[in-house]
Amino acid sequence: MRILVGNHIDPSIRERGDMRAWTQRLLWFARPGDLLILCCEPDPAFVDYALARTGVKREELTMLAAPAGAWGDKLLDPASLTVPAFVEQVRAALGPAGTGAVSEVFALWPSAAVARLADALGVADLFPGAAFFSQGGGEIGNSKANFRALAAAAGVPILPGRVCRSRAEAIEATGVLLKSSVAGAVVVKQAHNGAGVGNQLLVRDPEMAVGHVGARHLHHLAPGPDGIAAYWAGRWPWASGEDRWPVVIEEFAPGADAVYSEHYASDAGTRATETGRLLYVGRRLSHQVVPLDGVSGPVRAALLDGGRRLAEAYRSFGYRGYLSADALILPDGSVVFTEVNAQVSGSLHIYQSIAHGIVDVTAAPARQVVEYHVPPTWTVPSFTAFLTALDELGLAYDPVSRTGVIVSMPAIPLAPGEPVQFVFCLAYDPAEGHADAFDRLDAHFASVPAGTYDASQHVGTGAVSFSS
Amino acid sequence: MRILVGNHIDPSIRERGDMRAWTQRLLWFARPGDLLILCCEPDPAFVDYALARTGVKREELTMLAAPAGAWGDKLLDPASLTVPAFVEQVRAALGPAGTGAVSEVFALWPSAAVARLADALGVADLFPGAAFFSQGGGEIGNSKANFRALAAAAGVPILPGRVCRSRAEAIEATGVLLKSSVAGAVVVKQAHNGAGVGNQLLVRDPEMAVGHVGARHLHHLAPGPDGIAAYWAGRWPWASGEDRWPVVIEEFAPGADAVYSEHYASDAGTRATETGRLLYVGRRLSHQVVPLDGVSGPVRAALLDGGRRLAEAYRSFGYRGYLSADALILPDGSVVFTEVNAQVSGSLHIYQSIAHGIVDVTAAPARQVVEYHVPPTWTVPSFTAFLTALDELGLAYDPVSRTGVIVSMPAIPLAPGEPVQFVFCLAYDPAEGHADAFDRLDAHFASVPAGTYDASQHVGTGAVSFSS
Repeated sequence: MRILVGNHIDPSIRERGDMRAWTQRLLWFARPGDLLILCCEPDPAFVDYALARTGVKREELTMLAAPAGAWGDKLLDPASLTVPAFVEQVRAALGPAGTGAVSEVFALWPSAAVARLADALGVADLFPGAAFFSQGGGEIGNSKANFRALAAAAGVPILPGRVCRSRAEAIEATGVLLKSSVAGAVVVKQAHNGAGVGNQLLVRDPEMAVGHVGARHLHHLAPGPDGIAAYWAGRWPWASGEDRWPVVIEEFAPGADAVYSEHYASDAGTRATETGRLLYVGRRLSHQVVPLDGVSGPVRAALLDGGRRLAEAYRSFGYRGYLSADALILPDGSVVFTEVNAQVSGSLHIYQSIAHGIVDVTAAPARQVVEYHVPPTWTVPSFTAFLTALDELGLAYDPVSRTGVIVSMPAIPLAPGEPVQFVFCLAYDPAEGHADAFDRLDAHFASVPAGTYDASQHVGTGAVSFSS
Repeated sequence: MRILVGNHIDPSIRERGDMRAWTQRLLWFARPGDLLILCCEPDPAFVDYALARTGVKREELTMLAAPAGAWGDKLLDPASLTVPAFVEQVRAALGPAGTGAVSEVFALWPSAAVARLADALGVADLFPGAAFFSQGGGEIGNSKANFRALAAAAGVPILPGRVCRSRAEAIEATGVLLKSSVAGAVVVKQAHNGAGVGNQLLVRDPEMAVGHVGARHLHHLAPGPDGIAAYWAGRWPWASGEDRWPVVIEEFAPGADAVYSEHYASDAGTRATETGRLLYVGRRLSHQVVPLDGVSGPVRAALLDGGRRLAEAYRSFGYRGYLSADALILPDGSVVFTEVNAQVSGSLHIYQSIAHGIVDVTAAPARQVVEYHVPPTWTVPSFTAFLTALDELGLAYDPVSRTGVIVSMPAIPLAPGEPVQFVFCLAYDPAEGHADAFDRLDAHFASVPAGTYDASQHVGTGAVSFSS
């Protein structure tokens, strides 16, 4: 059996609001016998729903909620994992075989606290990379600033850009990069954020097409150096987290496709696990597709080669586990890398558990899987209401045709009665595409007029935290 | 010829006060033909003094002061290096052969700004590690927090300890580490500082002997958890640089010897360059000795082996250049590593230029070199006064006996008429030791009663920044 920890980035690095729903995607990884640790009691409806699809029985799993810490049950307090009473509870839950039955410790985020729990249980050797993670390696591997230095050293292609530690450096770098950028635009990136939420696109031309870009925030620069200085006067604290992190500034690459190559790093080496594509609408992550299609052989080879070299580089300094190398395919077919997420990404459950596990996309006839975010224009009353709509529309997942919708996570309203936000997978025939099914759902749930919500806010009608 | 940059840690990471004097140790590395870049006009007396000892002629060197930036001439503003007029000045100074004559770009600190200067000149390939450093690799390689994760991953022995990102984590970690520490003491370390100035020793027992420890600051903990919480309530902003950096907390190892193993990392591999010993008096760095003596074969082997593995680990993620792996020899003879300084340390000029270059310590009869800091109890009026005293005492360096004092850096008073602070090397016969010569200097210059200065302040009678 394995110990699976449904955690998230340490709140001391980035304090997410409420990760109760998103971390329950841990259920997709559960195999018979596993012990799952979550920040909250799992949502019974989602547990039943997910396990019915993976074929694991509820009674074959042990699920423990870590003691409430500084964030109640909304975030997993890393310190809770080693509260002595909880360690004893975990030990007791292992059953008569004790830790001898444990084959692996697996966590959504490589926290030092997971390494300490593994150590307290006497199974530190079963948490790959434990020594590295126990001393803060998780932060090193997940910084978008560190990424640029490590990728540059490994000779992996990146966009022209700079890593800045002060407002003065940012002002200088922005001016230099805007000058060399053909598009007259740069992307500012927080070192620790995800899904484009920590990115801001700075453009000189208000007409530039930017809806497809993974940058939640947009700023139209006023002309000349004053426009640059004015931007940084206001946004340096946001970009740097009040001076906590270096800030990445990169030339903007217009017309690029966002893709990724995921890998697994072990003591023995690295292996590629899957490639996929990210699609942004209105600058927010809308959906992602696995396996990656629609790219030429050389593009695929460049993506895999750069991903492998990054995985090797991260492995060489101590990272162990899954990692995602994000990249852009430029209009000329070249591939440049933009970041590495050295954690369980928002893609692993899609490709490993759903696409390859449940749907088996490689069997005949071939299938593909897209995972959609509930768009900000929808109002979904509840998890049950969504499942009912799927049944009514004939869109629930059908194991015979291997098509239809599988909801990826529970739907927990932030306040009673509020609409819910979540992600859901849709398995489809690649020859037919996924637009028709999505359009039918859109017709059913769309009720918030576009343009009535703030495109920079996380969601239109709520603020559930998800994505990594 | 080489381009030598007399810089220091980027002020955006750690803003030193006044590095004019300390960065002029660059003179010790100069060879005929070299171009030196400094933050200020070099001190003529020191230039003449140093070159007379290295045998390089003043007219064989080109020395340029970078344009004054945000810190005037007290610190080198990284942005100054790529001011177009300065780049042109450097290019003009290269002479008719232009960049074709450049064999290497060498910097005291691996700043992205040096990589940009090299790039602007078209010689980025001659600055080892340029791609890595151009994207902030210097910060990665010099963090004491990153060190712990990288050393743990490499399997190099470190002391029990933790890397903390919040006050809450620091309080928890301090409690845990004090409990397991036999001495009932821990050391708190800023991620970016040097020579023990960023270290604070927390002790429960006010009687503990701590004068020899490399921790400028000392705190006697009040009993129980309240004492720990009270400490962190006051000192977290200091330790973390207002939340900018992770904080290292380690068990204190009483009765240990501080040593180091230096290495050079190139594209081809790493090589050990020298080992030495650091000695602290009143918790401030007092002197260091090269080559390392008085250790057993197994201790030396462990120091070199761990240093080599750290050098390889740093090399593998992109670091190039000299680095110093600092370690403690514990009373039981085991060697544990405490930090890596991936920059030109405060030791390179001692062993490479002075001990091996000028003194030639390996020739017969064998010599050893100690470098002393002017102690806080001395009042030295000026560089000239110090040289005059050396002559009077017969302690000036004598090339025939290969013994005596070589002053390592200029002596610049922070305010006109104030006493000066600096470091000076003393070459001696290992059979005789260095105490006698030092005592004669001490008798000459000591005038500040011990106990009348704050042991936590950088110096007793001034505030010149030196050491790396």
